[in-house]
Parts: sequence; structure tokens; C-alpha cells
Amino acid sequence: MARMVLIMEYDGNNYYGFQMQKGQPTIQAELETALNRLSGEKTRVTASSRTDTGVHARGQVVSFRTDSALPPETFVDGLNYYLPEDIAVKEAYRVGDSFHVRRDAVSREYRYVIMNRHTRSPLKRRFAYLVTAPLDVAAMNEACQCLVGEHDFASFATSLEARMKSTVRRVYRAGVERDGDLVTFTIEASSFLPHQVRNTVGALVRVGLSKMTVKDFGDILEAKKPGLAWPTAPAHGLCLMRVNYRHSWEELRN
Amino acid sequence: MARMVLIMEYDGNNYYGFQMQKGQPTIQAELETALNRLSGEKTRVTASSRTDTGVHARGQVVSFRTDSALPPETFVDGLNYYLPEDIAVKEAYRVGDSFHVRRDAVSREYRYVIMNRHTRSPLKRRFAYLVTAPLDVAAMNEACQCLVGEHDFASFATSLEARMKSTVRRVYRAGVERDGDLVTFTIEASSFLPHQVRNTVGALVRVGLSKMTVKDFGDILEAKKPGLAWPTAPAHGLCLMRVNYRHSWEELRN
Repeated sequence: MARMVLIMEYDGNNYYGFQMQKGQPTIQAELETALNRLSGEKTRVTASSRTDTGVHARGQVVSFRTDSALPPETFVDGLNYYLPEDIAVKEAYRVGDSFHVRRDAVSREYRYVIMNRHTRSPLKRRFAYLVTAPLDVAAMNEACQCLVGEHDFASFATSLEARMKSTVRRVYRAGVERDGDLVTFTIEASSFLPHQVRNTVGALVRVGLSKMTVKDFGDILEAKKPGLAWPTAPAHGLCLMRVNYRHSWEELRN
Repeated sequence: MARMVLIMEYDGNNYYGFQMQKGQPTIQAELETALNRLSGEKTRVTASSRTDTGVHARGQVVSFRTDSALPPETFVDGLNYYLPEDIAVKEAYRVGDSFHVRRDAVSREYRYVIMNRHTRSPLKRRFAYLVTAPLDVAAMNEACQCLVGEHDFASFATSLEARMKSTVRRVYRAGVERDGDLVTFTIEASSFLPHQVRNTVGALVRVGLSKMTVKDFGDILEAKKPGLAWPTAPAHGLCLMRVNYRHSWEELRN
């Protein structure tokens, strides 16, 4: 038995998120079906981050155990042969069995893209959230700086989540940038609460539209009350860019 | 009767190009249907560049005559209401009747995107041509510099086209750049022969794969023989970025 890791890219538009849900198309279901076709094994996979319905990934990390002796390159090419065109494996590594894809991750990087112009965009319609009124990107960028550091992000959680577990997370960096019509929010943190990035974007858009001030945004964080950071921005603007581990894949290779 | 100009963006994946073709979905057919719904008129539109099947646009310019007194802003919003999600109007201007959308254009800018990595890309699959072997971008960029200036581009035409009309065009700039896995070719010219950009990209990829030298590429241009620049790169990597006129839309406004 060996442990394999896959780096995956997917267009989330046609899926009910990563995690298996009975009777619904999910990334996990597609991947496990493809693995079964390739290796003949019934395999259960685990992802570093469970992306929601409609959310994309450029660097999702997935792990599973296998008896297959196929080399990693064959996993890449073979899985890409069986997977649908909106899901792909970019890299594969054989790692030590003690590796844990969630617990060993030191940070996750997400990117959220907003199309900020008067008219809808046919080319970006599946990958960017349309905000038609002009956004004050400098104010948004200033507001999100208060997120950096270790904080209780209860205000960015749903009420259920906040009552169940710790809502303390560490944010390593956050920023908002404009490139023409595109406004991009990037954030790297130890891990995220469910919907945290989308609730953050929803609140930042309110800052960008001058419906609230930079100070109001800081007050939301301070209040630690679930439901204060709203609205939840649509899923299709969000992409899991990268998951970082203490060691490189070269070092983890088995 | 007044003349209107529209700046349009579209995802060409679902269309048989811009120009009307009986029984096939085209951008022109969708636009004329939407114009009819908005103004009640039967209108014929003309585009600055007739993009091929599967080719995208970020700044296609389209012109038509109308008796409608609707203001330009209403054309933008009304057409976007009626048009399908993969076609949109970004801007509209009322211009003098002497304006000719093709003849008055001084240059067209196209961009061709190549995804250059070992595995296919779910996120870019509809907007970039996958080349799995590493491309020598410096060689490609060097090769395409010979295109700049006024030349007979017969080698970049189909044989039929070359026999019918002049194949002389003026290229203002051309370049190939890499940004991570993405390799982008940009070219601005007075106008283009049918398939010229895609034939140019096909030949440049051969340079990038060391299947021919920079000098070989120059020899193709010199030879002026239709069919020498091949293969025709796939349509879905190509996008009409912008059409330039001697005067700004402010100046042309009527």
C-alpha cells in the first residue's frame, strides 16, 4: 500500500463542489470513478480543501492510498484520459504513508475575481462576479489589511459553524488589486471557515461601493458575530490557487 | 436614418463565426434578432472583422443604420437583455452616416493564447490552444519580428484567397510573450487575410518546437507561396482584441 498525492485543476461550474454527495456530480465522484477505471481499485480520496458548489481550483491537493504500482506519470496521463474535460490532474507524487493532506497543509491560497464594469462579460461570465457600479479598490485593499494575523473570524462564519468549532484562523496576507475591468482579491491563511472567503468578498464589495467604511469593516471583524459579513459573494468568482506544505513534493516523495 | 456603432465582446465557442450562414448560429444572426426585438426594425449589420467559427472577440466593432430614436445607452442595455449570455454589447455610439466600419478602420489587434504545459487545462480549455511540449518563446518572438512592416503575406493565405486579391498588408507590431504556462502572440495590422493569424501561429509553434529555424520562418514570408505557413492553429485560442480608427468615438459621435 502506498500513498499518492495529486495536484488538480478544475472548472467548478458543473459540479456540486469537491465532496461526494449522493446523486450529484462532484469532483470527488469523478476522480474516484476515473481512479477505478485506471487502477481497478475502489479508492476513497481526501482533499486539502473542500471547495463548494461552483468553486474552481488551480491547485487543489488530493490524497489517497493505492496498491497500484503504476508510476506517478501514468496516474497523471491515465486519469486525464478518463476524467471529463473540466477536471484535470497536473502532477502526481508518491509520498510517505504518514503524510496527511489536510493536517499537514500550512496554508491555502484563494483568489476571487470580480468583473467591474457596466456590462456583463461573455468571456469571463463563468469565472468572475459582475459588479456594475465602480468599486473603490484602494478602500477595499485598505479594509482587508485588518484580516492579516491571527483573529477570531466568527463574523465571517455562518452561525452554525461558529457554534460548533473554533473560528480562530491565521491570515498570512490579503490584498485587492485592479487590472483594467478586473478586480482581484487574494488571501492566504492557515485554513478557512466555510464560506469565509465569499463572505469576506461580499463585505469588501460593500466597502468598495461606499455602503460601509473601512472602519465598519474592521468593526465586523472585532464584533465576532456570525452573519455580520454579508452577502456571500457568488461561487463562480472563487478559485483555490494553491495549498502549501512545510516540505516540497521533492522532499515528501517516497 | 442614423448610423450606430457597437463595441462587442463574445465567446465564439458556440458560433459559426460572425457572419450570417443559413441555418447556423452566428454572432450576426443573434445580434440582428436582438436588434429586431429591441427596435422592431429589420436591420442588417456589418462587422469590422469577420471572425471565423470559434474565434472570440473583446472589441469587435459593428455598424448598422436605424430609424430608432433610442439613445445609445438604451441600445447597450436593451441588446444585452435580448442577447444570449455569450454575446454582449459593451458600448454604443451614434456616428455620422459617412462612417464605414471596415474601410475606416486603420488597424486590427488580435491575440492568440497557447497553454504550454504537459497537461490539459480545464480552466483555459475554451480559450487557449494546448501545446504540451515546451516552447522556445524567445525564438518565436524573434521569428515574428520579420512580419513587421508592409509585406506580401501570400504564404500566410489559403491558395484561393491569394489568387483573388492583393495579399499585401502592413503589420504594425507583433510579439510573443510567456506568463507562466501561458504563451501569448499579439499582432496589430492594417487588416488580415483569412486565417492569417492562425497560420502565423501554426508556423511560429513549429519554430518554438525547433522543427524549423527563425530563418526558415523568414523564408516562408519571402517565398510568397500560399500554404507554406501551416498548420492553421485552432480557432479557440484566437481573440479580436480591438479595432482602431483614425478618430476617437468622441470625435466620430453624431
